[in-house]
Amino acid sequence: MAKDHDRLDKLHRRFEVKPGTKVKLKNFDPGWAGGDELPKKVARTVADAELTDDVSDLAKAQELLYADRSRALLVIFQALDAAGKDGTIKHVMTGLNPQGVSVSSFKVPSVEEISHTFLWRYTQHLPERGMIGIFNRSYYEEVLVVRVHPEYLAPQKLPAKKFDDTFWRERYEDINAYERHLVRNGTEIVKFFLHISKEEQKKRFLERIDTPEKNWKFSAADLKERKLWDDYERAFEDALTATSTKEASWHIIPADNKWMMRALVASILAAKIQSLKLKHPELPKDEKAKLAAAKEELLREK
Amino acid sequence: MAKDHDRLDKLHRRFEVKPGTKVKLKNFDPGWAGGDELPKKVARTVADAELTDDVSDLAKAQELLYADRSRALLVIFQALDAAGKDGTIKHVMTGLNPQGVSVSSFKVPSVEEISHTFLWRYTQHLPERGMIGIFNRSYYEEVLVVRVHPEYLAPQKLPAKKFDDTFWRERYEDINAYERHLVRNGTEIVKFFLHISKEEQKKRFLERIDTPEKNWKFSAADLKERKLWDDYERAFEDALTATSTKEASWHIIPADNKWMMRALVASILAAKIQSLKLKHPELPKDEKAKLAAAKEELLREK
Repeated sequence: MAKDHDRLDKLHRRFEVKPGTKVKLKNFDPGWAGGDELPKKVARTVADAELTDDVSDLAKAQELLYADRSRALLVIFQALDAAGKDGTIKHVMTGLNPQGVSVSSFKVPSVEEISHTFLWRYTQHLPERGMIGIFNRSYYEEVLVVRVHPEYLAPQKLPAKKFDDTFWRERYEDINAYERHLVRNGTEIVKFFLHISKEEQKKRFLERIDTPEKNWKFSAADLKERKLWDDYERAFEDALTATSTKEASWHIIPADNKWMMRALVASILAAKIQSLKLKHPELPKDEKAKLAAAKEELLREK
Repeated sequence: MAKDHDRLDKLHRRFEVKPGTKVKLKNFDPGWAGGDELPKKVARTVADAELTDDVSDLAKAQELLYADRSRALLVIFQALDAAGKDGTIKHVMTGLNPQGVSVSSFKVPSVEEISHTFLWRYTQHLPERGMIGIFNRSYYEEVLVVRVHPEYLAPQKLPAKKFDDTFWRERYEDINAYERHLVRNGTEIVKFFLHISKEEQKKRFLERIDTPEKNWKFSAADLKERKLWDDYERAFEDALTATSTKEASWHIIPADNKWMMRALVASILAAKIQSLKLKHPELPKDEKAKLAAAKEELLREK
């Protein structure tokens, strides 16, 4: 389906954190549903259709990424609880060839992981050329949850004596240098912050408590973290501001409407791979001659 | 044995590339054997005695590193052929507890390794806290042999279209940022360039050819690389200049006299670990009480 690329580009840029700008989350509406132009119902129908369309574009783009093997794509998802990371990964990535996709979820680190510097465990899971690597949480936890709970730093036995602004600024600097290195060497990066409102989180928590099949998704610890909402918001604002770079910018995706979130993520990803202008590898002339010879031999077989 | 720390410190600094200075290798004498003060024979006796002494200091320091578990030590060796990397590692590291030491030698990368960015394969082998990790060759090959042979870059399928000064400067920048991250997070780094003269290399090559038990150490390819001596020298000068930082400076070790090279390497390493002022971990009070209780129980056993 032909697409209005200018319109899409403008739409995507609406959610991008322009490098160098200071992020205030209150300026981003988690409930955004297409703007004033369209009634929400119509917007949803359009978004659903575009999602189907974008996922199919994405599948084609991924095939090309896989065949070309000159680039990798690292996709990072960060969010507060219940914003919909898992659901988005499921809905956007289902339909891609799993041989070209790996999803890494990061929970509590192992002893071996904690015994290395904080980027080490994530490096193990970086996608190789040709692959899409999805990080469900990432090294950004090291400046988000860890910033809200600096006591989590103890097992890292850091040389730093205090965890002040300089400490966090150095972590941002390390992350930016790390991503710059990746991009320079062929790993493209797309970063999504799925932005949910406090009201919508409450609604989803209640739903998880009230629906027996969803009970497993809820833990009492979630409520404890919810009480730290403002701290998390500040940690996100700082991190998004400091690490949205020209090499790897952040997208703040409105997450209160799942259909909108998924359509946007799929659309941005498809556009990203398309922007690389990859081509199916073409054989050199002498290799083509060998193909012709092989064909002849096969046809001569009795 | 009590040591004259000021004298040692001065000696070590003589071989350190001060961050920000431009390296000219002709200003470093590969045949340095203790200066004019001592006749070479006496210098050798002193150096041999100090090596024994330093290796024992190093063994003690390593035990502390292992017990303390707050720091790792990464030791990098780079050199031209026959400068004595393997021999130095053998003579300096023998005597350390192998459980606390890992040596990684880097040869031709695997397909998986070449499919990631150039720092990835080295990251796999970084030492964890408590360990000494020795890199026999390292990511510096990516700005040394690869700089002399840019055709080696082809399998990396880089986005860069040309490999000009900017390209190499960016690699230095990536390496510096990488090392800064390591140091900030508890991995100390010591870097040795074993500096051999062209004459001494010739002598050692001839020895390898003339001594049947040493034949395996020589390959015809070594002679081809020797023809590129000036290119290598330039690549080393540039890399040493650009990557000797306050976090991780280079040492240029005179390599024509093996006994001098080994004594210097051991001495610098021991001093490095000692400078960290690590302590044997002390148990908290309540844990000590448990020890006393355990002792009592053991003694009561019939």
